[in-house]
Amino acid sequence: MTSSLPTIMTAITIPVPGGPDALVPGERPVPQPVHGELLLKVEAAGVNRPDVMQRKGLYPPPAGASDIPGLEIAGTVVAVGEGAARFKVGDRVCALVTGGGYAQYCTTSALTALPIPDGLSAVEAAALPETFFTVWSNVFDRGRLAAGETLLVHGGTSGIGTTAIQLAKAFGAKVFVTVGSAEKCAAARKLGADLAIDYTAQDFVAEVKSASDGKGADVILDMVGGPYIARNYEAAAVDGRIVQIAFQQGSKAQVDFMRVMLKRLTHTGSTLRSRPVADKAAIAQALEAKVWPLLANGSVKPLIDATFPLNEAAAAHAHMEGSTHIGKIVLTIG
Amino acid sequence: MTSSLPTIMTAITIPVPGGPDALVPGERPVPQPVHGELLLKVEAAGVNRPDVMQRKGLYPPPAGASDIPGLEIAGTVVAVGEGAARFKVGDRVCALVTGGGYAQYCTTSALTALPIPDGLSAVEAAALPETFFTVWSNVFDRGRLAAGETLLVHGGTSGIGTTAIQLAKAFGAKVFVTVGSAEKCAAARKLGADLAIDYTAQDFVAEVKSASDGKGADVILDMVGGPYIARNYEAAAVDGRIVQIAFQQGSKAQVDFMRVMLKRLTHTGSTLRSRPVADKAAIAQALEAKVWPLLANGSVKPLIDATFPLNEAAAAHAHMEGSTHIGKIVLTIG
Repeated sequence: MTSSLPTIMTAITIPVPGGPDALVPGERPVPQPVHGELLLKVEAAGVNRPDVMQRKGLYPPPAGASDIPGLEIAGTVVAVGEGAARFKVGDRVCALVTGGGYAQYCTTSALTALPIPDGLSAVEAAALPETFFTVWSNVFDRGRLAAGETLLVHGGTSGIGTTAIQLAKAFGAKVFVTVGSAEKCAAARKLGADLAIDYTAQDFVAEVKSASDGKGADVILDMVGGPYIARNYEAAAVDGRIVQIAFQQGSKAQVDFMRVMLKRLTHTGSTLRSRPVADKAAIAQALEAKVWPLLANGSVKPLIDATFPLNEAAAAHAHMEGSTHIGKIVLTIG
Repeated sequence: MTSSLPTIMTAITIPVPGGPDALVPGERPVPQPVHGELLLKVEAAGVNRPDVMQRKGLYPPPAGASDIPGLEIAGTVVAVGEGAARFKVGDRVCALVTGGGYAQYCTTSALTALPIPDGLSAVEAAALPETFFTVWSNVFDRGRLAAGETLLVHGGTSGIGTTAIQLAKAFGAKVFVTVGSAEKCAAARKLGADLAIDYTAQDFVAEVKSASDGKGADVILDMVGGPYIARNYEAAAVDGRIVQIAFQQGSKAQVDFMRVMLKRLTHTGSTLRSRPVADKAAIAQALEAKVWPLLANGSVKPLIDATFPLNEAAAAHAHMEGSTHIGKIVLTIG
């Protein structure tokens, strides 16, 4: 089945960790799908913060994962391992992968692959898995956001943020976001945010309180950490849930936990990459049932900031680190 | 219905906050039950840490609550307000109250009153509400302790600790406790603890890990706080839940939250006294259905350390602050 495939492919490698130029196009063997896996000819691969961390040498790939960066892909199935018969050669899918996405070919567990939603391009589909798996599992599963509740998202115009705004609105919640410029405020509001707070000019705790009649946010999705942790405890409502998905300003903080007890807060978090495949498969099933129809009917759509050809992965990373982007950055693979 | 009752009663008052001697017997009007309330002739009242805090002036009674200390009582119903017809005059009940327990008479919401379990004395019944409501709502509701999981309880021979050991064992969990002496280790093991750690001589993180094949505790019930917070994050298992019910060593700490994200921990907590009566009523219903039968058949029983007459409340507090007690301290009211 794989006999017509090449044996060598172009992939982005990281010979020596460092700045964006540490990403070097090179040649690698085309991977083979093992039991339960699909091999995809990759058409597009999403760029994510963990890729930047990996490039810097700060986030080594987990055991068994490819050392090629890239956590999400879209493309065409070109080979199917045993036990992966849900899909067949020729199917167009997007997938959450444990690594290896910045390449012409990439294997994925069939359990974390989903059909490309009707009407979406490969670039749009490649922008889905990381943010949609992350937002679903953290905001809806872990954070238990319910209709009528208020979600606060830090980084409202990131890939995660733009997804969180749309999904939370689609499921009947109010959405507040923090962003770093007036332009990003406008973009967040355009996506549906009820309140966009420019953290360079406003105190998010005061803004959240005043926009919620003093009540605070029911769920807070935070990737900032550091000094935001104590402030999240202030901004949260009674019975609020704070879900930590990254620590862009560090994971250490001096905190007064009194509010955790008095307001019955829940501070939790998760990382997607390290979770067992069974967990990811459950998230995939929930997404396909509850969110894929919203993508197919256009009520939710991935926001693409920019695309770069695979060989210009370094420029894509430099762009992400510039933090001016609004939405996802995606690599295209010819 | 209340015409045969006296109008004046003996109660413990706190004219000036301070040490144990700040508790002064005095005269107060007998309270009247309002809508939804019962009036009890109190036979016994449990002594709890929040009473000590209140005596010191550090924990003012919530709005609408009596300024007489005492959060749990047992006795006989002597008057029934409108809308409280679940109980009738002459019924023997124990109750969680928002204050006023250190007195000859005390009102309670009928929703937080429960029949005295068969075979228990008033002293034993007065020892139930605070610890059983607290352990049920924090370990089982909030902490979601399941059969086969491991619970770590700090303060294993406190009223909370001795209750947590027995309930967790009754529902099929493993129980580890920390306590402050070899004598308390023996008492905890006698109550059913699988592992008792003397924190004056052993590192609880290392002991918990080694007794759980490196896995850690699934649920941690903590009333210590301070430096224990970071160590709880270490001692917790993947997907572990840490429930904070007090901060005996302070609520402020320097913490690295990385483990919260990487191990998908949940750090939460609650205080019982401030919760809406509807929450307390739900806890009461769960206790009556799931725990009262275990009290009636003797498989779970409150552990009484000492009793003091009402007029010696000061001595009861001094005893609690000595921290040599194992189990509950209860006031008896002639």
